Amino acid sequence: MQHQHPHPENHLTSSAMLQDIVIGLSDGLTVPFALAAGLSGAVQSSGLVITAGLAEVVAGSIAMGLGGYLAGRTEVEHYAAELQREYQEIAEVPHVERAEVDELLQEMGLSAATRAQAVRELTADPDQWVRFMMKYELGLEKPDPRQAPKSAFTISTAYAVGGLIPLSAYFLTATPTEGLVLSAVMTLVCLLIFGYLKSRMTGQPPVWGALKMAGTGALAAGAAFLVARQFERQ
Amino acid sequence: MQHQHPHPENHLTSSAMLQDIVIGLSDGLTVPFALAAGLSGAVQSSGLVITAGLAEVVAGSIAMGLGGYLAGRTEVEHYAAELQREYQEIAEVPHVERAEVDELLQEMGLSAATRAQAVRELTADPDQWVRFMMKYELGLEKPDPRQAPKSAFTISTAYAVGGLIPLSAYFLTATPTEGLVLSAVMTLVCLLIFGYLKSRMTGQPPVWGALKMAGTGALAAGAAFLVARQFERQ
Repeated sequence: MQHQHPHPENHLTSSAMLQDIVIGLSDGLTVPFALAAGLSGAVQSSGLVITAGLAEVVAGSIAMGLGGYLAGRTEVEHYAAELQREYQEIAEVPHVERAEVDELLQEMGLSAATRAQAVRELTADPDQWVRFMMKYELGLEKPDPRQAPKSAFTISTAYAVGGLIPLSAYFLTATPTEGLVLSAVMTLVCLLIFGYLKSRMTGQPPVWGALKMAGTGALAAGAAFLVARQFERQ
Repeated sequence: MQHQHPHPENHLTSSAMLQDIVIGLSDGLTVPFALAAGLSGAVQSSGLVITAGLAEVVAGSIAMGLGGYLAGRTEVEHYAAELQREYQEIAEVPHVERAEVDELLQEMGLSAATRAQAVRELTADPDQWVRFMMKYELGLEKPDPRQAPKSAFTISTAYAVGGLIPLSAYFLTATPTEGLVLSAVMTLVCLLIFGYLKSRMTGQPPVWGALKMAGTGALAAGAAFLVARQFERQ
């Protein structure tokens, strides 16, 4: 699901891919697990739990993958549009843009004399000027157009892989209740391991990261279970 | 689901909230709709579609809300840890940090003479120096600690509201097939309107935005329908 992830400027392709795997896998493990757990308290057939779970995995995987792809495309288009606008602005209203450069340098903490010299240098070349405005005024880095499809594929595959883990328990057992027990054990172990590795990777306390991830999954599954059973009883 | 959203530096609280509503609503409309559509082709009871749909809404809403909250908390902790490290570094290895400031200014396009003066000014005050490193070396803005819980609440509420729209159709009709028809009409209209407004808000072509959002929902629902029916037939 859509959390807020700061995008560090300097990540390599491999770490972008790792980040996408983390995104897909953590949601894939959590939501299909919770849905299956919820249904296990409300229906008598494991087949039904699996059918609903597979429908969710397919739906979620397409929504995340295609959604991510389209968001990436939008980012590329947005960058191109802003780039064109900046070139137009430095041509049409150079004094306004020069004042903006000066303002940004003032925020950094430069003196008036240094700023005057710095503004002259930064605005000497149009390409450099525009690059400065894009990065420091708008906070935009040039997006890689090949990143969007790659990212979409990685996220949706990771989501599907994550989602099939909790569902596989219902294949291996006879009743939804047995399925739920095995699914919960398998998924919580995966969430603990995965939360641990994810936190180590990002430099956070790993045990706490493991507990947070497993706790989120357990809470979502518990709530889905209660709601589904409540509704089915009525 | 988790797309990539650039976070513009200068957004106000209201636009951060609007962004959270967009995130929650677009996923809430898509995934529960697709799940319900998928089950409609596989089961005979509308009650079952609603039970599974509600379980998904609860699971997704908690996963997104709690996940977003914890991600926000992590961001706050990460910022605090990096801030402390930068203060330590400018105290312990000031020459290294001074060279980093110089390098950043070189990337901007400043001459050696201007950089020498600028580095002196930027590193004169430790607070200003650290703020410069945080923002321009690490690309980190000070996160608002109250933002994470607010954001989590908004996203999960929007997800739940979005998810109840497609499910409400099954309350209003007698069979899953009738429910699916009404649900698809209602949801696709909502996705079109919502995609249009979202794209207008972010300055993208609105008609294309409307079609993209409705297309994603339709594709996810269609795929879930085919998979669920295929599986139920076996």
